Amino acid sequence: MVKLVEYEDASPEVKAVYDDIMATRNTKWINNIWKALASHPPTLARIWSQVKEVMGPGGRLDPLTKELIYVAVSMTNNCEYCIRSHSAAARKKGMDDEILGELVAIVSLANQTNRLAIGYQVEVDDFFMRQPE
Amino acid sequence: MVKLVEYEDASPEVKAVYDDIMATRNTKWINNIWKALASHPPTLARIWSQVKEVMGPGGRLDPLTKELIYVAVSMTNNCEYCIRSHSAAARKKGMDDEILGELVAIVSLANQTNRLAIGYQVEVDDFFMRQPE
Amino acid sequence: MVKLVEYEDASPEVKAVYDDIMATRNTKWINNIWKALASHPPTLARIWSQVKEVMGPGGRLDPLTKELIYVAVSMTNNCEYCIRSHSAAARKKGMDDEILGELVAIVSLANQTNRLAIGYQVEVDDFFMRQPE
Amino acid sequence: MVKLVEYEDASPEVKAVYDDIMATRNTKWINNIWKALASHPPTLARIWSQVKEVMGPGGRLDPLTKELIYVAVSMTNNCEYCIRSHSAAARKKGMDDEILGELVAIVSLANQTNRLAIGYQVEVDDFFMRQPE
Amino acid sequence: MVKLVEYEDASPEVKAVYDDIMATRNTKWINNIWKALASHPPTLARIWSQVKEVMGPGGRLDPLTKELIYVAVSMTNNCEYCIRSHSAAARKKGMDDEILGELVAIVSLANQTNRLAIGYQVEVDDFFMRQPE
Amino acid sequence: MVKLVEYEDASPEVKAVYDDIMATRNTKWINNIWKALASHPPTLARIWSQVKEVMGPGGRLDPLTKELIYVAVSMTNNCEYCIRSHSAAARKKGMDDEILGELVAIVSLANQTNRLAIGYQVEVDDFFMRQPE
Repeated sequence: MVKLVEYEDASPEVKAVYDDIMATRNTKWINNIWKALASHPPTLARIWSQVKEVMGPGGRLDPLTKELIYVAVSMTNNCEYCIRSHSAAARKKGMDDEILGELVAIVSLANQTNRLAIGYQVEVDDFFMRQPE
Repeated sequence: MVKLVEYEDASPEVKAVYDDIMATRNTKWINNIWKALASHPPTLARIWSQVKEVMGPGGRLDPLTKELIYVAVSMTNNCEYCIRSHSAAARKKGMDDEILGELVAIVSLANQTNRLAIGYQVEVDDFFMRQPE
Repeated sequence: MVKLVEYEDASPEVKAVYDDIMATRNTKWINNIWKALASHPPTLARIWSQVKEVMGPGGRLDPLTKELIYVAVSMTNNCEYCIRSHSAAARKKGMDDEILGELVAIVSLANQTNRLAIGYQVEVDDFFMRQPE
Repeated sequence: MVKLVEYEDASPEVKAVYDDIMATRNTKWINNIWKALASHPPTLARIWSQVKEVMGPGGRLDPLTKELIYVAVSMTNNCEYCIRSHSAAARKKGMDDEILGELVAIVSLANQTNRLAIGYQVEVDDFFMRQPE
Repeated sequence: MVKLVEYEDASPEVKAVYDDIMATRNTKWINNIWKALASHPPTLARIWSQVKEVMGPGGRLDPLTKELIYVAVSMTNNCEYCIRSHSAAARKKGMDDEILGELVAIVSLANQTNRLAIGYQVEVDDFFMRQPE
Repeated sequence: MVKLVEYEDASPEVKAVYDDIMATRNTKWINNIWKALASHPPTLARIWSQVKEVMGPGGRLDPLTKELIYVAVSMTNNCEYCIRSHSAAARKKGMDDEILGELVAIVSLANQTNRLAIGYQVEVDDFFMRQPE
C-alpha cells in the first residue's frame, strides 16, 4: 500500500523516532510496521509515543501480562502482523508453548461465551450493574 | 429470547450443574447466563465444564491474569454481559480502577494498532515468521 | 438518529414499498427498521428489493434454514435488532427452543474455533486449497 | 506459532484423540488444526469433544445445515482456515456452487442489514421483545 | 472456493453485467470479485446494481469521500481484497500517501476510542440521545 | 464500571485536560467519555491529545469528512456511544439526513461486499498488488 521507509532514506524527524525505538528496545532493528507508518510521519510519532507509554515498564501490570492482553485482542481481531510480532515479544518476556496454550484457550473460550450471552440476549444481573461499590 | 430456568423449576441434570457452579464458586447464587443456557441442557453442561477447566485454578497463568484476558476479548467484541460479569470477577481477584485503566489502555491501543497493520497491509517480517525456534 | 416515517406521513414512493412489504408478508404491520430506512428512500427501496429476493421463497435452501443463517451472522455481529427480529421470523417458520439451542451452540463453537485457527495461525492444508475439483 | 504434532511424535493422550477423530470421520487423515491444538493437549481434548458433540449426528438440525451455519460464522469473522475446511465438509454433505451462492448471499446481506440497524440505532419493536410467548 | 468465470465462458446474462461494468467504468478489464460472483448469477446482478447505484456519481458525497468511507470499513473488517481494490479506486480519484495517512489515522483512532467507550461501558449523554431536533 | 469524574472533583491534571477540551471545542460542557477516562488520568491525557491532533483542523481532509469516516468505523464496530456522539459532531459540521443516508448506504454496502470477497476467498488481482506505482 505504501513504500516502506528505510533508515537511510528517512527524514530527520523519522530518524529520530527510529533511533528512539532502537534505543528503547536495545536493538539495531526496525520492523516493518514502523517503516510503513513512516509514510505519514505524524502518525509514526504519535503511535510510537503511545506504544512506549502503554507497553513500556511501569504501572501495575507486568510486561508479560501486557503482551498477553495485546495478543488476545489481536487474535480476536485476526491481525496476523500483530499476532506474530507480539507473540515474539511475549516469548522474549517468558511465554512458552504452555502459556500460549492457556492464552489461546481463554481467548477462544471468551469468543464462544460472548456469543452465548449475545445469542440469547441475556439481561445483565442487577448485581453486576452495581459494580464497583 | 428464552425463559430463564430458575433452580426450583430445573430438571435434575440442570440442578446438578447449578449445584456444581455454586459449590465451585462458593456462593448461593446463579447468574443469568447459566439460567439462559439451561434452556438447552447439553449446552449448559458443556459450557460449564469448559469454563471450570479453563478459568479455574491450576496452570501457569494466575486467576487475575486469566480474567483480564477474558475481559480484553469481551471489550473487543462489545459483549456487555461478559464485560460486566467478568469485570466483577476480576475485581474480586484484585483488579482496581488503576489496573482496569491499564487494561483498557492496552485493549484500545491494540485495537488501534491492529488497524494500522491491516490498513497499510504491512508484510510480516521474516524474523517473526521464524518464531519460535 | 432519524425520525421514523409512519405510513400516513410517507411519500408515494415510500408508501409503495410499505405496501409491497405488507402484501409480501401478509401482514398489516411495518416494523421499525423500514421506518428508519424510509428517511433515505433510495436505500429503503434497494434494501427491500434485496431482502425480498434473497430471503424470499425459491432457491435451494428452505425458509427456516435461511433465517437460521441470518440469525447466526447477527449473533456473531452482536446486532440486537437483527437477532430479535429474525429470531421471531425463524420461530414463525418452525424454530423452537431446542433448535435455537443447537443454533447458538454452533454459532458459539464456530466463534471459538475461528480464534483457535487464527490464534495459532494454522496453515491451510493443501487438501482444502484444492476444493472444489 | 507452534510446531505441528505428527501422529508418530504424539504422546499417548494425543494419539487417543487423533484415533478418535479418524474413527469418527472414517478417514486416515488428521488436518492441521488438530496438530496445532496438540501443542496443548488439554485444549485438543476439550475442543475435539465439543466439535464431536455439537457438529456430530443427532439433534434437530441436519448435518448440512450445521455446516452452513458454521461457515456463515467463519465468513463473518474472516477465518480462512475455517471457511476452507468447513466448506469442504459442507461439499461432502451436499453443498454445491448454487447452495454456496445462496449461503454467501444471505451472509453478506445480513452483514449489510446488521449495519443498517446499528447505523440508524433502530429501536427494537415491542413485538419482538415479547418473543417467545 | 469457486471457479472464476471468464468473459468468453460466461452466459449471456453474466456477459451483460460484465459489459455494463466495463462500460460504466470505461475499462476493458473485469477484476476477480465479479468473476467469483458470476458463479451465482443472481448475486452478480444484484451486487453490481447496488455498487453502481451507491458508489456511482450523484448524491451529496463526492466520489473520493465515498471511496474513503468504503476503505475505512474494509480496514476495520480486515478484508484484504476490499482494502486493496478500493484503495486503488481511491488513488484514481485523488488519494495520495498523505490522504491515506490521514484516513488510516482516523480509522485506527476510532477503533481505539470505540473500545474505550465500550470498555468502560460509558452511558450515552442525554444530549446525544436527543439528536437530531 | 467506574465513577465519572466531575470537574469539581477533578485533580489539577484532569482539570487541565477538561479546560483544554472546553477551550478547543468552545463549549462549557464535558461529555461522559472524558469523565470515564479521567478515572485513569494518563489515558485521559493521551487520548485527548490524539483526538485533538487527528480530528482537529488542518491536514487534507475537511472536518465533515473526518467525522463521517469516524462514524463509519463506529457503525461497523457497533459502538453506540461513538455513533451517537460523532453523529452529533457530524451534524454540527453539516451532515443532514440525506448525507447520513448516503453514509449508512456505503457503510452497509461495504460490510456486505467485504463478506462476498471473504466468503468466496477471492484472490487479489495482480493489478491491485502493484499499487501504488
